[in-house]
Amino acid sequence: MDKDRLDPWGTSAVKDYERLQSEFGIGPAAPLLSRFKKPSPHLSRGIDFGQRDLGRILDAVDNNKPYAVMSGIKPTGDFHLGTKMTADDMVYFQSLSRKATVYYAVADVEAYADNGLSFEQTSKIATRNVADILALGLDPERAVVYLQSEELKVMRLGTVFSKGVTNNMLKAIYGERQIGLYMAALYQAGDILMPQLPELGGPKPVLVPVGADQDPHIRLARDLAARYDDEYGFIPPSAVYHRLMLSLGGSDKMSKRSESSLLTLDDTTKDAARKISTAFTGGRDTVEEQRRLGGRANICPVYDLYRFHFARDDEHVKRVYHECTEGIRLCGECKQEATGLVKAFLEDHHRRRDSLMGEAKELLAKSRKYLSSSGK
Amino acid sequence: MDKDRLDPWGTSAVKDYERLQSEFGIGPAAPLLSRFKKPSPHLSRGIDFGQRDLGRILDAVDNNKPYAVMSGIKPTGDFHLGTKMTADDMVYFQSLSRKATVYYAVADVEAYADNGLSFEQTSKIATRNVADILALGLDPERAVVYLQSEELKVMRLGTVFSKGVTNNMLKAIYGERQIGLYMAALYQAGDILMPQLPELGGPKPVLVPVGADQDPHIRLARDLAARYDDEYGFIPPSAVYHRLMLSLGGSDKMSKRSESSLLTLDDTTKDAARKISTAFTGGRDTVEEQRRLGGRANICPVYDLYRFHFARDDEHVKRVYHECTEGIRLCGECKQEATGLVKAFLEDHHRRRDSLMGEAKELLAKSRKYLSSSGK
Repeated sequence: MDKDRLDPWGTSAVKDYERLQSEFGIGPAAPLLSRFKKPSPHLSRGIDFGQRDLGRILDAVDNNKPYAVMSGIKPTGDFHLGTKMTADDMVYFQSLSRKATVYYAVADVEAYADNGLSFEQTSKIATRNVADILALGLDPERAVVYLQSEELKVMRLGTVFSKGVTNNMLKAIYGERQIGLYMAALYQAGDILMPQLPELGGPKPVLVPVGADQDPHIRLARDLAARYDDEYGFIPPSAVYHRLMLSLGGSDKMSKRSESSLLTLDDTTKDAARKISTAFTGGRDTVEEQRRLGGRANICPVYDLYRFHFARDDEHVKRVYHECTEGIRLCGECKQEATGLVKAFLEDHHRRRDSLMGEAKELLAKSRKYLSSSGK
Repeated sequence: MDKDRLDPWGTSAVKDYERLQSEFGIGPAAPLLSRFKKPSPHLSRGIDFGQRDLGRILDAVDNNKPYAVMSGIKPTGDFHLGTKMTADDMVYFQSLSRKATVYYAVADVEAYADNGLSFEQTSKIATRNVADILALGLDPERAVVYLQSEELKVMRLGTVFSKGVTNNMLKAIYGERQIGLYMAALYQAGDILMPQLPELGGPKPVLVPVGADQDPHIRLARDLAARYDDEYGFIPPSAVYHRLMLSLGGSDKMSKRSESSLLTLDDTTKDAARKISTAFTGGRDTVEEQRRLGGRANICPVYDLYRFHFARDDEHVKRVYHECTEGIRLCGECKQEATGLVKAFLEDHHRRRDSLMGEAKELLAKSRKYLSSSGK
């Protein structure tokens, strides 16, 4: 496909974040940092590097106005560290105001169509995925979690959009793609714009935290918001963009498509230790060389584990970076420390998640009731 | 669009039925007539002129095996005479065997997307549409009526198909169309193939009675049946094709898109009389000329009223044709007789339909229960 287009379905890493900003109009996040009382680790560490209309969300926070935070998951397997990044953003932006509501879409129909998973299978996976987010800090009191197969509002919007969108508009955003991908994109736009429907409180700012490669979906949703403004009064959705982690194999982004490339929140501590021990690093060929030249943290997935997820705080990230690039720490000891942090996280997370399975089921049932009582 | 392609969404009449047979592989219905104990008026009058794999349905009848008859409606207004033709076929083919089940899809999501009708509006229209079919003779004991917005099996199939179909396949069948039309077509293929899902009894012959212009949808469903045969064991759906009525204006087919062109089952007898009195006919410029040359029944929508719907029997149709083309009957008296027949039908139909509204609601509720208990 066209190299000038971002590919949200591919697995190639998007490293050229400057190009994203200049060519696609994604704004830098840094200038807005001063507006946060306590920026999240993703913000302070430059992981959330870009945004569109993030100021609109901050205005809503400042003025105590309602807004929504929207994301989704295809329930084909367990949470991996890429999914966790979006979830962390969701939890953080929910925490900024009592007026924030999280909408979380579980794309079970897509999981069936793409991966052949039955609704029974995806239902189990979905419940555990919801327990994962709860364990990561989601407040269930202000969250609506829904299954694609049960939420007719999204189907309705997707069908409306399919009639109003032009093929050229889709081609300009996604390139010439197979119709199934276009259809999935239109339903995703439905997911993103649903929180603004009259029966869910009407137009409001909506923030979508996404990986940098998902910008085409944001552009489509924003185009459609403008196109259907007269009818629905949509406010163009806002987005915050995070960088993509390096895969443990050292290339591409971490993806469900390559089993060995990812740590999942379902890994046993033993699995995780094994994956880290065999991971690619930015180390040099010999100890001598590494002492002399330093490691290359910028291409190291083990460094990414610290920076994106497991460092205790920003100082810790800086220290690891410094020690690596100055040749003070070697890869073995670095992996050992990372393994310890990941193990501690997983043990804690598994305990919390298991205790939250009941609450996850309750949240799904409560959401179903809420959405069905708010009209079809 | 390409003139060599049929256009199921257009309003231009398809008169060249021979071409349909030679180019698109629709078989003639006539050679199968001897297999019917009592052919329907549509069959005996050559209105149902074509078929695909109709023999498979007749085999099922002969061998007392289950089969389905599938059709649908977009609930945007009342039954018109074109809709009635499909309904008559549905009722007839259901009546051939105790093992026949009718599936009837109400495309309420499309009605919302295309016509802006709320689900509340379409729900009322749908109930009356169902009462219309019951009044036309549908046996509710062997019928399943479902709303697109409530039937997830169709959504699931449509999504699966969207991933497996190629753009070239869609373009070959429909030409280069707007994506919303492709999407609607894929969901229609879902409607047609749903009765063969394991939870609904598995693979079985399915007959779709359609207007001649709807063949592209049949070809798509048959292509998809072959493409997903390994996974679902689909039997390619059968179809029976009816000719299109002339519009009362004298051109194009009768269509919901042109108010004055159609008689509906909701017309008052007064409305109907007015529409017939102002209808185009195949009459000549002067009485003298008509006595001498005869009328042109083959281009006359009033003759179509007799032939397609309101003549008492086949002999009656032949007599009207003979008297017209021989110059024995003039348009005034012919319209008067037709008006009388239409009035008598409408009075009877309205009375029956009104008394069946409760049964229509029951059928919808029963179907919902049946489909939801048969897995998602």
